[in-house]
Amino acid sequence: MKAEIITIGDELLIGQVIDTNSAWIAEQLNLVGIQVHQITSISDNRAHILIALGEAAQRVEVVLITGGLGPTKDDITKNTLCEYFNTELVFHQPSFDNVKKIFGLRGFRVTELNRKQAEVPANCTPLSNINGTAPGMWFENNGVIFVSMPGVPFEMKPMVTNEVLPMLVQKTDSNCIIHKTILTHGVGESFLAKTIESWETELPANIKLAYLPQPGIVRLRLTAFGSDNDELDIELDNQVEQLKKIIPELIFGFDDETLEMVVGRLLKERKLLIATAESCTGGYIAHLITSIPGSSDYFMGATVSYANKVKVIELEVEANDIEVCGAVSEVVVSQMALGARQKFGTDFALAVSGIAGPGGGTREKPVGTTWIALATPDKVITKKFLFGEHRGRNIRKAALAALNMLRLELLRMSAKDYLVLHK
Amino acid sequence: MKAEIITIGDELLIGQVIDTNSAWIAEQLNLVGIQVHQITSISDNRAHILIALGEAAQRVEVVLITGGLGPTKDDITKNTLCEYFNTELVFHQPSFDNVKKIFGLRGFRVTELNRKQAEVPANCTPLSNINGTAPGMWFENNGVIFVSMPGVPFEMKPMVTNEVLPMLVQKTDSNCIIHKTILTHGVGESFLAKTIESWETELPANIKLAYLPQPGIVRLRLTAFGSDNDELDIELDNQVEQLKKIIPELIFGFDDETLEMVVGRLLKERKLLIATAESCTGGYIAHLITSIPGSSDYFMGATVSYANKVKVIELEVEANDIEVCGAVSEVVVSQMALGARQKFGTDFALAVSGIAGPGGGTREKPVGTTWIALATPDKVITKKFLFGEHRGRNIRKAALAALNMLRLELLRMSAKDYLVLHK
Repeated sequence: MKAEIITIGDELLIGQVIDTNSAWIAEQLNLVGIQVHQITSISDNRAHILIALGEAAQRVEVVLITGGLGPTKDDITKNTLCEYFNTELVFHQPSFDNVKKIFGLRGFRVTELNRKQAEVPANCTPLSNINGTAPGMWFENNGVIFVSMPGVPFEMKPMVTNEVLPMLVQKTDSNCIIHKTILTHGVGESFLAKTIESWETELPANIKLAYLPQPGIVRLRLTAFGSDNDELDIELDNQVEQLKKIIPELIFGFDDETLEMVVGRLLKERKLLIATAESCTGGYIAHLITSIPGSSDYFMGATVSYANKVKVIELEVEANDIEVCGAVSEVVVSQMALGARQKFGTDFALAVSGIAGPGGGTREKPVGTTWIALATPDKVITKKFLFGEHRGRNIRKAALAALNMLRLELLRMSAKDYLVLHK
Repeated sequence: MKAEIITIGDELLIGQVIDTNSAWIAEQLNLVGIQVHQITSISDNRAHILIALGEAAQRVEVVLITGGLGPTKDDITKNTLCEYFNTELVFHQPSFDNVKKIFGLRGFRVTELNRKQAEVPANCTPLSNINGTAPGMWFENNGVIFVSMPGVPFEMKPMVTNEVLPMLVQKTDSNCIIHKTILTHGVGESFLAKTIESWETELPANIKLAYLPQPGIVRLRLTAFGSDNDELDIELDNQVEQLKKIIPELIFGFDDETLEMVVGRLLKERKLLIATAESCTGGYIAHLITSIPGSSDYFMGATVSYANKVKVIELEVEANDIEVCGAVSEVVVSQMALGARQKFGTDFALAVSGIAGPGGGTREKPVGTTWIALATPDKVITKKFLFGEHRGRNIRKAALAALNMLRLELLRMSAKDYLVLHK
């Protein structure tokens, strides 16, 4: 069964909003063996919506539509669906009850605009919206399923999970397609390609490899096709095991894992504590670490020492060293890490000092120059990086590089080391 | 002139990568009066690419294509373009010189894979790639312009800005379309719609309004069509002035501004300093503030006091108050703000303590409960919020609410207040 996703909204076509819905929906459909053939974004325009629906119905058996269901005047999807299916809007009491419930929870009064949200085309099965007021709509027409959902991700996602996917699964007799993504940090796409070339060349015909580079991370996605899910799982696992032997240190995780998730798990398993001292990353490492639920088990806190005097007062960096070597130097970043480890009473502390840009670069230390230090129970590890010229990317790359230094050190330490640590 | 954007890549259709390119390209095209009619995402599949190119050429005069130009084996766009235009690949020396230059800068050796990247279809005008090895390609065929570009945003963006847009502008005789976006914080979409209903109803026919909600922010986008750019500018400005009278406190900025940018500008203009003390936001406010270039002019630093003992030791919160009232309480968050203002020697300090979730909620303090305090030179302002159940959104909403408290306070203070402050 093939699907097309249609996202509706002028905001998408003028580039004001990035379409994140399609990627999420595509991922969900893949999980139940439905392949997305195309994603189409169109404007809030009656004629264009009608054409897109008609074209999609020619290409696929499932058309998932998001957007255009809000309470405000720019949204016309619902009326256009009526026109496409040659039907009319009818009032749906359970949807109106939901509007009233949602508004009650938020302490708002129901307006006439909201009452209209409970109207749906007569030929649809309404889908409930647990996080908002606009119901979803399921249509079946000439062998094609159409589902219209709100564009707000927070409302659309539970609707897909709780209602659309289960209803779709009942209609499929799916062929097997599975994915496994290997997450790497440390080298760029073409260097990585060269390193794993012979492994890649020997992949069987039913396994496809794609390189997905991001700032600081290259993801390797393996896609396997076949008739038996369990067999495919084993095939992919074998390939991953072979790859691990070629690039053991570069692989930090799989699929939807993040570096902060992996590092968090390692710290938690080993009952170790971490703190950060951040200059150019400005709290971003602490933010990444604390974005993980349960991070209070291993994260104590951070000092963001943006001003030099904060480095001196809060992290006991020698003012003279800042003067002589500069804030972006091995000696200063080492002291920052030691200061943070001391202050927060943790096993480890990460410190970063760099020139994120766009200003502040010199010939000796151009924008992108970044020192990272990791204070461990018995030493300080330091490393110098030269990232690029773009502030946001530099901050992100520095944070990832810091987390990866910690990851490698945690893996390097033996079980015996931890016992000593906790004596 | 109308355009279609085609993004190519299996990763888009299995939902592994979010297509951010299209939104950015669409925005750029709008700036030069080219309207994006449709965005189409398709797989790395020869047949599908050929169909999509053919269909787009029926709909529009400009087809911008991203993706599928990497050095690795999953990329087939270039060969398919040859097939579509019935031509063949030829070696392009300047593109190869660029490959060598880029690799030289990074200290890498040029591989055979990279040499292939300098091959382009014989009928194209190659476009230079200042941030990568794959050249772009400009084609003109039966009155339709096709441009193929790398999928990596960092490489594609300068190519659009430096080469594609200037070349496109030469081909246009553009009609005028301008946008103005009003950024609001503080109320939800339907409450906002009700509040500004009469203003919206009276908008002239050539001005269109769209509501674009995000967590914590509702953006109002006005789009005006006409024949004279300057006249449209004046028309939109007039509408915005009227709106400002209806919701003065809710509007925090316009277009691509962010709350952290606006707050940064206010602090800089007034020569004031800020610090943060963060518990549940875990450094995210500091990260937002320091994401702005030049923030070292007004941001001193932050204490991320994730553990309670860090609140006590670093921010001088009374341990007894944490015990009696809990870490998420008015008394504790006030002390955090005062402690940070004292520690960092700033004019203002923001503090946040809340239950981000998913764990940690109680009946009295459910997940989402958040206290925010702003210590000013003469007082502490506190406010309690009840956000939702989703960790990431709670962190984001808390950070925005905190920045907005600071913004409103900065606007409330008169010029005289600042003079007193700097005496």
